[in-house]
Amino acid sequence: MNKSKRILTAIVGIGLMGMATLAVAADKMMVDPAKILSETNVYGLYNTFKVQPSYYQISMADRSKAAAEVEAVVKKHSDSVFVQAYLTRGFKSESDFLLRMHAYEPAAAQAFLTDFSATSLGRNSKATLALIGVTKGLNHTTKEKSPNLLNALKSTSYSADAPKYAFVIPIDKSPEWWNKTEKEKLAMMEDHTIPTLPYLVNVKRKLYHSTGLDDTDFITYFETSDLVAFNNLNIALHSVSEMLYNTRYGDPIVMGTIMSVTDVVEAISK
Amino acid sequence: MNKSKRILTAIVGIGLMGMATLAVAADKMMVDPAKILSETNVYGLYNTFKVQPSYYQISMADRSKAAAEVEAVVKKHSDSVFVQAYLTRGFKSESDFLLRMHAYEPAAAQAFLTDFSATSLGRNSKATLALIGVTKGLNHTTKEKSPNLLNALKSTSYSADAPKYAFVIPIDKSPEWWNKTEKEKLAMMEDHTIPTLPYLVNVKRKLYHSTGLDDTDFITYFETSDLVAFNNLNIALHSVSEMLYNTRYGDPIVMGTIMSVTDVVEAISK
Amino acid sequence: MNKSKRILTAIVGIGLMGMATLAVAADKMMVDPAKILSETNVYGLYNTFKVQPSYYQISMADRSKAAAEVEAVVKKHSDSVFVQAYLTRGFKSESDFLLRMHAYEPAAAQAFLTDFSATSLGRNSKATLALIGVTKGLNHTTKEKSPNLLNALKSTSYSADAPKYAFVIPIDKSPEWWNKTEKEKLAMMEDHTIPTLPYLVNVKRKLYHSTGLDDTDFITYFETSDLVAFNNLNIALHSVSEMLYNTRYGDPIVMGTIMSVTDVVEAISK
Amino acid sequence: MNKSKRILTAIVGIGLMGMATLAVAADKMMVDPAKILSETNVYGLYNTFKVQPSYYQISMADRSKAAAEVEAVVKKHSDSVFVQAYLTRGFKSESDFLLRMHAYEPAAAQAFLTDFSATSLGRNSKATLALIGVTKGLNHTTKEKSPNLLNALKSTSYSADAPKYAFVIPIDKSPEWWNKTEKEKLAMMEDHTIPTLPYLVNVKRKLYHSTGLDDTDFITYFETSDLVAFNNLNIALHSVSEMLYNTRYGDPIVMGTIMSVTDVVEAISK
Amino acid sequence: MNKSKRILTAIVGIGLMGMATLAVAADKMMVDPAKILSETNVYGLYNTFKVQPSYYQISMADRSKAAAEVEAVVKKHSDSVFVQAYLTRGFKSESDFLLRMHAYEPAAAQAFLTDFSATSLGRNSKATLALIGVTKGLNHTTKEKSPNLLNALKSTSYSADAPKYAFVIPIDKSPEWWNKTEKEKLAMMEDHTIPTLPYLVNVKRKLYHSTGLDDTDFITYFETSDLVAFNNLNIALHSVSEMLYNTRYGDPIVMGTIMSVTDVVEAISK
Repeated sequence: MNKSKRILTAIVGIGLMGMATLAVAADKMMVDPAKILSETNVYGLYNTFKVQPSYYQISMADRSKAAAEVEAVVKKHSDSVFVQAYLTRGFKSESDFLLRMHAYEPAAAQAFLTDFSATSLGRNSKATLALIGVTKGLNHTTKEKSPNLLNALKSTSYSADAPKYAFVIPIDKSPEWWNKTEKEKLAMMEDHTIPTLPYLVNVKRKLYHSTGLDDTDFITYFETSDLVAFNNLNIALHSVSEMLYNTRYGDPIVMGTIMSVTDVVEAISK
Repeated sequence: MNKSKRILTAIVGIGLMGMATLAVAADKMMVDPAKILSETNVYGLYNTFKVQPSYYQISMADRSKAAAEVEAVVKKHSDSVFVQAYLTRGFKSESDFLLRMHAYEPAAAQAFLTDFSATSLGRNSKATLALIGVTKGLNHTTKEKSPNLLNALKSTSYSADAPKYAFVIPIDKSPEWWNKTEKEKLAMMEDHTIPTLPYLVNVKRKLYHSTGLDDTDFITYFETSDLVAFNNLNIALHSVSEMLYNTRYGDPIVMGTIMSVTDVVEAISK
Repeated sequence: MNKSKRILTAIVGIGLMGMATLAVAADKMMVDPAKILSETNVYGLYNTFKVQPSYYQISMADRSKAAAEVEAVVKKHSDSVFVQAYLTRGFKSESDFLLRMHAYEPAAAQAFLTDFSATSLGRNSKATLALIGVTKGLNHTTKEKSPNLLNALKSTSYSADAPKYAFVIPIDKSPEWWNKTEKEKLAMMEDHTIPTLPYLVNVKRKLYHSTGLDDTDFITYFETSDLVAFNNLNIALHSVSEMLYNTRYGDPIVMGTIMSVTDVVEAISK
Repeated sequence: MNKSKRILTAIVGIGLMGMATLAVAADKMMVDPAKILSETNVYGLYNTFKVQPSYYQISMADRSKAAAEVEAVVKKHSDSVFVQAYLTRGFKSESDFLLRMHAYEPAAAQAFLTDFSATSLGRNSKATLALIGVTKGLNHTTKEKSPNLLNALKSTSYSADAPKYAFVIPIDKSPEWWNKTEKEKLAMMEDHTIPTLPYLVNVKRKLYHSTGLDDTDFITYFETSDLVAFNNLNIALHSVSEMLYNTRYGDPIVMGTIMSVTDVVEAISK
Repeated sequence: MNKSKRILTAIVGIGLMGMATLAVAADKMMVDPAKILSETNVYGLYNTFKVQPSYYQISMADRSKAAAEVEAVVKKHSDSVFVQAYLTRGFKSESDFLLRMHAYEPAAAQAFLTDFSATSLGRNSKATLALIGVTKGLNHTTKEKSPNLLNALKSTSYSADAPKYAFVIPIDKSPEWWNKTEKEKLAMMEDHTIPTLPYLVNVKRKLYHSTGLDDTDFITYFETSDLVAFNNLNIALHSVSEMLYNTRYGDPIVMGTIMSVTDVVEAISK
């Protein structure tokens, strides 16, 4: 039996066991904002919008009702989607605002977005970017593989003031990266993680997996009030060998000011 | 006789035999949805559309007739084209819906699309992506070349719940790939196929050949309800050496929710 | 005298002889469709157009006159430009139709296009691609350099049914290709040509040279009814070493259904 | 203790100390144009705009009030944002004017831009580029590392006439650059800086750091009246080995004529 | 004193001498079309425009006045800008016409373009490309470095009929090129120039330097009536080793028919 055949036999044997059970009843789970941001198997959707000139041909009186209209749609879907908003105007020419959604089913976020697009703001906004990813457990920095690093990651938590800004940075890995052994990838991810530890206190972060779901391998999300620290963190991430295998880092990087949905809609409705 | 001349003599001898007979009477074959999805020499067309703001200036009453109007066009062409629909809104910024067509003649799908573009939805939608490919028999994983792998592929079938989501992923191979020997390509395609076997139970797939017909070499199409499994399948496909020869993988990956034509038109007509 | 100086002396000596005589009286030559497609020093222009939504705001009655209006413009310029048309709608998202023009002077085709753009269809269509090239004699596969291959090319002719589809594929060569010796290029062009011979019976082809005239080195044009054969022909072209020096192959590949000018205009005017 | 663990211990120890203090009270600092251009921890935002055809459908009488309206917005925010303007029309097809903003908080510039977009000019202009960066102390050419070069930089100052033109050039470094040792980078930055010294007298320059904040690593800004000198300076910057690690140099380079806000608005309101 | 320091001392010594004198009184020099095309320190601006559908909603009577209106603007600025025009319609999908401007100050061309954009044609045209460069003396092929080649260049002049077509081809060099020694660059420029000598009789050419001023290193401009010769010239330029260092060659190549400003405006106003 040659190598391919042996692997084949082994994998088919293992593989056919109940892999289709992960999403069971996902569409019936109620969304709790306090929990969904820390769970795995959660879908994160990031959508940026550019307000079209037609929006400002609506009377100011009507535009002033837009926030309530959008809030009503958010509320209608709050059992199945947790929605957050950011003002990107001036930071990015391609968009004016960003919606971040978390759901147990992408279709739930899609249903929210379909209703949002029927609001007066949605009707007059153009979607300019859509990203989707799923949360999973840590891949490399696990208890078994890298216990010290995991401890360091867990023992430090964000302690700065409430973050003012958020950043969305899609990351793509080269085929060469994906063809590395698990050991090689672990070593590089340790090198990648170590210089980021000092920033745990002032930069929050969250990771989504997107390979095959979208045209990116990962979506990384950050919140901070300390933009110089954030710049230094990114320089640190550029200065490790793992960076040599990133074929995309941003492009776009989306920067937004963290605001309530109401505040974002009011800011762009002026 | 030098090498070039010998090959020349051989190929011309073989080549001139009746290659032009494949499409005989294709334009007279009736489309049977139950059969056309499993046949070779079938053309698959994927077209995404972005609904334009002008659509929503049509009265709600008129928009509510759009589904019936589109269904009538689908029915008119049902002898020559099998049409399916997907909601992409919110997953992709470039489109709101996807039409998938199968026909024995591309011109038949073109005739359908020409009529579709004259509906009120079609008039107010912009085509944002068009892909075309043809189904063929298995290239590498044949009975002769790779019997065990073929058996594995055939002995396992999709057994999960009805799939909710579909993905279209165009794939391009580098000139280096195409210049490899058949044996080298077979070995890499075996390496590529083995890790995908565990996902036969929960991810459906279909392949189209496009080299020369379109700006991609292959169109791969997937259906699944288990997006974590689908993400893992794609990671497995990235982690084999064949991936080193892919110059395009998606870009775009189109993700849609599987729906009837009527449901898609109603969702975007709200 | 160093190498540069010697080459300089030789080239200047040769070079100053009457190179400017090729286009003599080109603007006075009458176009004969039966001849112009097989002559050298002929300019081929390919222009794709996307019909704009404004076209369909014109009444159906007025749109039904569009074909006659376009035909009149084609006729007006028929002494200096030979015009052909193709329906691309549904095959390419960027365009609805393709115009192919042949003329002894590019300015003659420009004059036709200027008049076309003043028709009701032209006014409401957006040019989305324009390619220009010139026909020349065979470069590599000549009687002197490759007599057997030339014989093979000449002894086989298209014998299938009238072709239904046309493809336009721009090709770019890398600087490494252009820096190869004539002998190296000849060897690779022979390797390139041999596997294409079996398809002479069912795929027509035509070549234009564009280096410096346009952002491509070559325009290749094909007609066929056998799309599986055409896909196989393109795979054969990808599988020879010459492909390693192609920096562009399509991008876009334009696929259209071969129709009369009248039929194309009527199809998009429905 | 392996290398990774040692570095980990060291960095965590250092890293957790008060990095979050840099931005303290930034939102309460008053902007002084005379000072803010020479301070560190200042955010520079560059936004280009293309005036839309709709602007010229406003009556000339109303357009003549645009400058005063924009000036009022600039004044309203002058405590928190310093705004400068440039005419780019004719130099860049993507834009007609450029706004340059300096603030201690990006949100302050965002608030200004939100108000600007509500002016008649802002309503009828499309943002076409947005860049953000932060000023920091010199990285490589410090007193300790490169005292002679620092002296040369400090001993020469701009002595030509008031500059007429400004240029914004985003710069990206490759992962290979970021993975170099500090010593290697210093050597290359010295090589980079030396040939630029002669141009200190006639080209003003300013540097912003953007890694992670935006899709560029650096924003470089120049002012000059001597465009031939500026062209020579850029050729000098292309001719050092550090250039081999630049993956982006401009793209776009934005060129504008230095004007007052009023003059820019009046020029494009004609 | 290490190498860097020595170079530093030398360059600073030389560099601080009066480099800022080149543009003296440039804004006061009167433009003479007969002279400005052959002088150094002259700015060349190339702007392409796409006529918008709105232009053809203006009555034919009003459109017929457009040529006189544009001519008046050209005349108004004729002391400071020399303007030429080309019809690109049909050759390039991105534009309908090209304006070429020469001035001693870019701001003078900007002032002309600002007035042009206020004409009825300018209002209804969209700028789609803008290139700027400056003329300088010959860099490599000087009397000292390459006397024979310079003689060859100077002893041959254009002797064909008045050229009908013009081409604008931006050229970018790789960092590897710029890092070559002067001797290496000279050798390659000689190799580049020699095969172009035979075309001096039927292809006119002009070179602009753009590094830092624009996103290209050079703008090359050609005029010819012999497009086959021009195609051969470009093939010759592709077939020398210097081509291996070109990272951009065209993209776009702009092709236009040489016409008077009046004729261009009338052609697109039909």
